[in-house]
Amino acid sequence: MSINPERFLKSLHDLRQFGASGVGKGVVRPAFSDDDIAARNWLADQMRAAGLTAHFDPVGNLFGLADGPSILLGSHSDSQPEGGWLDGALGVMAALEVARASDVPVSVVSFQDEEGRFGVTTGSAIWSGNLPLDQADGLKDHAGVPFAEARARMADLAGDFVHPSRFTGYVEMHIEQGPTLDTDGEQIGVVTEIVGIRDMKITFDGQQNHAGTTPMHLRRDAFQALSAFNAELEERFRNVVTPRTVWTIGHVSLHPNASSIVPGRVTFSMQWRDGDPDRLNRMEEIVRATAGDIASAKGMEVSFGPLLGLEPVAMDTKLQSVLAASAEQVAPNKWRKMPSGALHDATNVAQLMPVAMLFVPSIGGISHAFEEDTDEADLVAGVQVLFGAVNALF
Amino acid sequence: MSINPERFLKSLHDLRQFGASGVGKGVVRPAFSDDDIAARNWLADQMRAAGLTAHFDPVGNLFGLADGPSILLGSHSDSQPEGGWLDGALGVMAALEVARASDVPVSVVSFQDEEGRFGVTTGSAIWSGNLPLDQADGLKDHAGVPFAEARARMADLAGDFVHPSRFTGYVEMHIEQGPTLDTDGEQIGVVTEIVGIRDMKITFDGQQNHAGTTPMHLRRDAFQALSAFNAELEERFRNVVTPRTVWTIGHVSLHPNASSIVPGRVTFSMQWRDGDPDRLNRMEEIVRATAGDIASAKGMEVSFGPLLGLEPVAMDTKLQSVLAASAEQVAPNKWRKMPSGALHDATNVAQLMPVAMLFVPSIGGISHAFEEDTDEADLVAGVQVLFGAVNALF
Repeated sequence: MSINPERFLKSLHDLRQFGASGVGKGVVRPAFSDDDIAARNWLADQMRAAGLTAHFDPVGNLFGLADGPSILLGSHSDSQPEGGWLDGALGVMAALEVARASDVPVSVVSFQDEEGRFGVTTGSAIWSGNLPLDQADGLKDHAGVPFAEARARMADLAGDFVHPSRFTGYVEMHIEQGPTLDTDGEQIGVVTEIVGIRDMKITFDGQQNHAGTTPMHLRRDAFQALSAFNAELEERFRNVVTPRTVWTIGHVSLHPNASSIVPGRVTFSMQWRDGDPDRLNRMEEIVRATAGDIASAKGMEVSFGPLLGLEPVAMDTKLQSVLAASAEQVAPNKWRKMPSGALHDATNVAQLMPVAMLFVPSIGGISHAFEEDTDEADLVAGVQVLFGAVNALF
Repeated sequence: MSINPERFLKSLHDLRQFGASGVGKGVVRPAFSDDDIAARNWLADQMRAAGLTAHFDPVGNLFGLADGPSILLGSHSDSQPEGGWLDGALGVMAALEVARASDVPVSVVSFQDEEGRFGVTTGSAIWSGNLPLDQADGLKDHAGVPFAEARARMADLAGDFVHPSRFTGYVEMHIEQGPTLDTDGEQIGVVTEIVGIRDMKITFDGQQNHAGTTPMHLRRDAFQALSAFNAELEERFRNVVTPRTVWTIGHVSLHPNASSIVPGRVTFSMQWRDGDPDRLNRMEEIVRATAGDIASAKGMEVSFGPLLGLEPVAMDTKLQSVLAASAEQVAPNKWRKMPSGALHDATNVAQLMPVAMLFVPSIGGISHAFEEDTDEADLVAGVQVLFGAVNALF
């Protein structure tokens, strides 16, 4: 048996009809919305048609189960509030096509709320034990709706949680969500690890003052501290980071944030990501020392919020090697090994079983936007690589 | 006749009872509030007791008129939403004390809404013709109340506008609202000019992106553009500014302002102040060129909002010289000439007649806060200087 590219692409376009929105191939299908639930019911029908047993768990994760031990493939079919047609949906439909095309036992999953309406990768986090269910039930979305109320919308579908021991491993196909493959004209990325994240809020407290009457040399201006911190941090990171390391100041809150007042306080987010836990720790030391030095130099106070962190997750070496071999066959010299800078359900599933991931290019590196897209030839190459790898396992 | 320090200070403390609030000597007496109107009625009584004719104009400015041509002294008795007991109230009570103590013709004014609940120095701006009344009537406060509705609260008190030709000049005493006099242990500042202001919003448009998957070298990060602009501007200003020049980035709005997203857009305020219009213009050129260069270097778009500006206002040389002579007599070697970095009602009144200002110290440079204060010895020195100068004019 083999992959049927037309069938695969048609299924992907069919799924997009649930929540099709915006420009291009945009999709609005957030977790537990009417469109999300309708899409999951349609997916369950597709799973049954492929000979799988469709099964919803108590938090909306949808499994298409093969009989006996199997390899689990999939991702998530919920979208960002403004998302594209691929993202997690690609991994789910690729999994379904591989299940259709394979004689070996392949199960399929669409996790719920990967996009974090309520938490972060909520459905797979609960399934893997990373997030206790009673704690999840208290999480609220931006409108104040609790998770417990949202999942109650699917209560009529829900069975028990699926025991992970029936799966021998998990492979997730996904769009890269970055520009690397597209920029270099490659078709496939075999993921080596999902990078770890450190994230904290930093606050500089200076002196709020009149922007007309306070001479420059007497100011303790919180924005100036932030700007100096940012510049100094780049210098100090230089000998520590790799070309793959990233760091971001994405949130800035000045107080009182008025054009005629020297700002007395700023709170900002400092986030950094890398695949090496030692480097993440070294960067934390530099962040703290730099902020402390800037505060001292400028006569200000600095305080640090709690450090939020996710450890890097290594992909299973055996699964990586079958993916690499399959990539070399499907797309010779047009694939690479690379880390994933984004979080995925695989991060959680790694608590339960060996996991691996493969990427296809994101045109222009764009994702989480209506404009997200990938050449159909690359989508088909991805599902071929997945098919080849899975069949090599048995 | 001479100044009565006890009477002056008692009047100042009496006025504070209207809206006394917060810690220390805090005051909450915004324009047209119950406390502001009660304070103005009390002030009118004080003016009558001093032999002046109390007169409200249609926008709440309160005059205590001497007969015939006179010198006008005063400031404003409204406060910031959280203000101190001095600010404009000091200039009004100092004027009243000088009127009480003088044989020469002295009129007193308390302008309305100097603190800008509706506009900027609203009452004196209307009186001077800088702000047309019908335009002012449409201005709304933060709660959406129009100026027309607010001034209607005082309609029962209102007479006509006072014709400015009855005044030979205007002198305003005020707290410095900055740290210069306090830091240097001086008692009096004779103001040379009120500095001009330029203020505009600048926007950098880059590329919003995923903070995990977008390598540093491919980012077009709006916050990084802002930080680089800020640093480069300081370099380029260095040979243009004086120790009195100030500039401020007090308002920053990042989009989408989330810790996991490379910010694609930032809009921020750029404000600068100086007493020299040529320098203000030269700084504008530098601001625009620097922003343009940073945008080019980082592959971003830059756009500029409208340039808001107030020209510098020179103080009348004759009034300055009588103030200086009086200061040297009252506080020998403990006074200086200095610009005002803050706006005052005198800015508007300068459209109508010769104006001058004198400052007393602000402890710690603090104003527009409950903590605002000045040593009583300095307050008395200020009113003595004002008295001496006024009497030297006749």
